[in-house]
Amino acid sequence: MLNLDATFAALADPTRRAILARLARGEATVMELAAPFEMTQPAVSRHLKVLERAGLIVRRAEGTRRPCQLAPAAIDEIDQWLGMLREALAKNYDRLDGVLAEMQRNKRKGKR
Amino acid sequence: MLNLDATFAALADPTRRAILARLARGEATVMELAAPFEMTQPAVSRHLKVLERAGLIVRRAEGTRRPCQLAPAAIDEIDQWLGMLREALAKNYDRLDGVLAEMQRNKRKGKR
Repeated sequence: MLNLDATFAALADPTRRAILARLARGEATVMELAAPFEMTQPAVSRHLKVLERAGLIVRRAEGTRRPCQLAPAAIDEIDQWLGMLREALAKNYDRLDGVLAEMQRNKRKGKR
Repeated sequence: MLNLDATFAALADPTRRAILARLARGEATVMELAAPFEMTQPAVSRHLKVLERAGLIVRRAEGTRRPCQLAPAAIDEIDQWLGMLREALAKNYDRLDGVLAEMQRNKRKGKR
């Protein structure tokens, strides 16, 4: 069970979301991430630590390289949580559809 | 276009997520929300303001009542953003499937 507080807090930063968007195109090292973002490597490393603790990325050792990649766990957990809200919204729409259909029926009856 | 920073920051709080979960079961007023959460109405109101600014809820006037309900806009926007990460993860799995299939083929060839 991941900490949703940490996951959502990690996503509330535009640079961290941009790093995730970059990793969506494939794994990258700190050095590779620092260049396009015009950030120092320590600054990128700090963001990566937040993303790693939040379960949004994993880092693997490959000799002296430590490439980062997206991790599915946190994204799955957010998805599940949002799913609950999506279902509720869908039900609200269904109720609204019902109300509109009822109004339509009453309108037709009135015309007769 | 909503501010994703504000939306994710609003979700990074367990009380605000619990309020959204309660609203998923139907609209509620500040008073109705305060009771089960054992919070004062001003404390609930502060959380509702954060959720409203983040586009996660809307409040409508109904006489003197101002019931809150879930808003689809912010949830749709988060969904779109997560969709990009989900697609990337799915592609990674496809690549992994490809690698495993290749390993399997090579293993079979080795056996012959």
